[in-house]
Amino acid sequence: MEEMITVAVDAMGGDHAPAEIVKGAVDAVKLRKDIKVCLIGRQDVVSEELAKNGFQGGQIEVIHAPEVIETAEPPVLAVRRKKQSSIVVGMNMVKEKKADAFVSAGSSGAILVGGQVIVGRIKGVERPPLAPLIPTKKGVSLLVDCGANVDARSSHLVQFAKMGSIYMENVLGVANPRVAIVNIGAEEEKGNALVKETFPLLKNCPDINFVGSIEARDIPEGEADVIVCEAFVGNVILKLYEGVGATLTSMLKSGLMATLRSKIGALLVKPALKKTMKSFDASEYGGAPLLGLNGLVVKTHGSSKAKEVTNSIIQCVTFKEQEINEKIKTNIGGSHGI
Amino acid sequence: MEEMITVAVDAMGGDHAPAEIVKGAVDAVKLRKDIKVCLIGRQDVVSEELAKNGFQGGQIEVIHAPEVIETAEPPVLAVRRKKQSSIVVGMNMVKEKKADAFVSAGSSGAILVGGQVIVGRIKGVERPPLAPLIPTKKGVSLLVDCGANVDARSSHLVQFAKMGSIYMENVLGVANPRVAIVNIGAEEEKGNALVKETFPLLKNCPDINFVGSIEARDIPEGEADVIVCEAFVGNVILKLYEGVGATLTSMLKSGLMATLRSKIGALLVKPALKKTMKSFDASEYGGAPLLGLNGLVVKTHGSSKAKEVTNSIIQCVTFKEQEINEKIKTNIGGSHGI
Repeated sequence: MEEMITVAVDAMGGDHAPAEIVKGAVDAVKLRKDIKVCLIGRQDVVSEELAKNGFQGGQIEVIHAPEVIETAEPPVLAVRRKKQSSIVVGMNMVKEKKADAFVSAGSSGAILVGGQVIVGRIKGVERPPLAPLIPTKKGVSLLVDCGANVDARSSHLVQFAKMGSIYMENVLGVANPRVAIVNIGAEEEKGNALVKETFPLLKNCPDINFVGSIEARDIPEGEADVIVCEAFVGNVILKLYEGVGATLTSMLKSGLMATLRSKIGALLVKPALKKTMKSFDASEYGGAPLLGLNGLVVKTHGSSKAKEVTNSIIQCVTFKEQEINEKIKTNIGGSHGI
Repeated sequence: MEEMITVAVDAMGGDHAPAEIVKGAVDAVKLRKDIKVCLIGRQDVVSEELAKNGFQGGQIEVIHAPEVIETAEPPVLAVRRKKQSSIVVGMNMVKEKKADAFVSAGSSGAILVGGQVIVGRIKGVERPPLAPLIPTKKGVSLLVDCGANVDARSSHLVQFAKMGSIYMENVLGVANPRVAIVNIGAEEEKGNALVKETFPLLKNCPDINFVGSIEARDIPEGEADVIVCEAFVGNVILKLYEGVGATLTSMLKSGLMATLRSKIGALLVKPALKKTMKSFDASEYGGAPLLGLNGLVVKTHGSSKAKEVTNSIIQCVTFKEQEINEKIKTNIGGSHGI
């Protein structure tokens, strides 16, 4: 019999909670018999949603958490005060090994704080980065860090590169992943103080396949598998990706409705157009793990619908099976920091 | 009789020099009788291009400059050593008031260095930012700074906001332009050290219409007219804009060729599609001025073709007519720095 994996899911977090979250969980356990989901939230609300989905069975358990951390709340205070919130309850389950992973579409700040304070860092890891997959022409790349960890140091970036490589190699199956640092030019002497300091450290790091600087222009082309940057820049990249994609899609739609000729054409190209735009939609690729924690915490988009929740839950299985955290422990812990 | 404006143009800079540059200059003087262009470059080469375009007349003069600064050369050294290069000769013409403006598609580094070292800053201006227009759903926004000025201070960003506002109001005709600072969240307490320090300064700046933080996601929607950030972030935004646009265009093209149905549709939607993608192409909006110099220096894309060169030359007229530098002098110089 195969091993079961337990994923705690924040039923109250995100714009479409609880309906889409619960639906996503139901879909996940339908797809995989080796997953158990603990839906964390207000018992009555969550049970009602489960009933709506006609769900019966042992693969989903509801864990009561009466409080909810709102997106606008100051994260540190919220995590400290709302002990009965879905985020704090979920994090504690991971800490106490009652769950292998926690998935939430709730407050990014609270998830980042909770991950560090409650679940805790792997020994030797200086900062746990948020590492989403972003779509490219060739597939996907991992963007580390996109969290709220601003003003990073070069030693953090080197760890991001190492952890990102382990993730891409083992979860995505990319052999010898190409690591690049975001820069404003291809030459080694270019960049701000942080990049100039980090570049030679990455170049001399034996554990990774460092390919040099990457200009933002080349990111969508898929020129690297692991894209290293500090969180402010990462956040800008991630959100601009979403923004340019969304704006172009909406502009294309109105552009195609402009003339009778283009309207007729639009009917014919719609499926192809939709497929292309979808392949470039970051939300198609599941949630972003917080790397380097003593357990798995996955942040999904605030706007997550059922499909992204399902994908994020299933992603946790590979993370566990490939023993990513053990590999990070050996690699980062074993090198006694940087 | 209307006043003539003299624009020095680097005939040797950029991927398509000299052919496209010379063609752009010829087109500009055909469109405007009040412009004189000085084409700077190798006399024989430039004259040959002029002949190819069948140009005769007094609106274009060729200024011989035997040297060329290559993109890969270290900028400071190149500007110091290559006194006879098209960039140095052009900058000197602006300095000596022989030209009102200098337009170049050449080495960004050399243009930024030359602008500061040869043309010089307006008194009180701490750093001259490179300020390109970027396309949005609503039109265009000005992105300051995208230059090579990394590791900026908060006082620089406040000046960028002021100069950017003057530019948008007077050159683009945007009344009371909305100024926003690039941030990783909408709340005032978010951001890295630089943004946190700059936010209250912008908030308390009486000369600008500060609307707060802007997340990268909202930039393509046109939520602000002047987008302030330090150059590393600005460079990432500008290049990712170009990158996502270019990658999506190429993916759409192959997507539309996938089936017979979509191929037929593609024929019908092609004009509408092309129009939309074009309106989102940064190169349509002329060059980027270096704001705050004692004269006008405009950097156009390295990949500039004739049309962008023409647009950049014509842009110089409005800059001169609206007395942008006099306004910057009054605003920045008058406030005795920050």
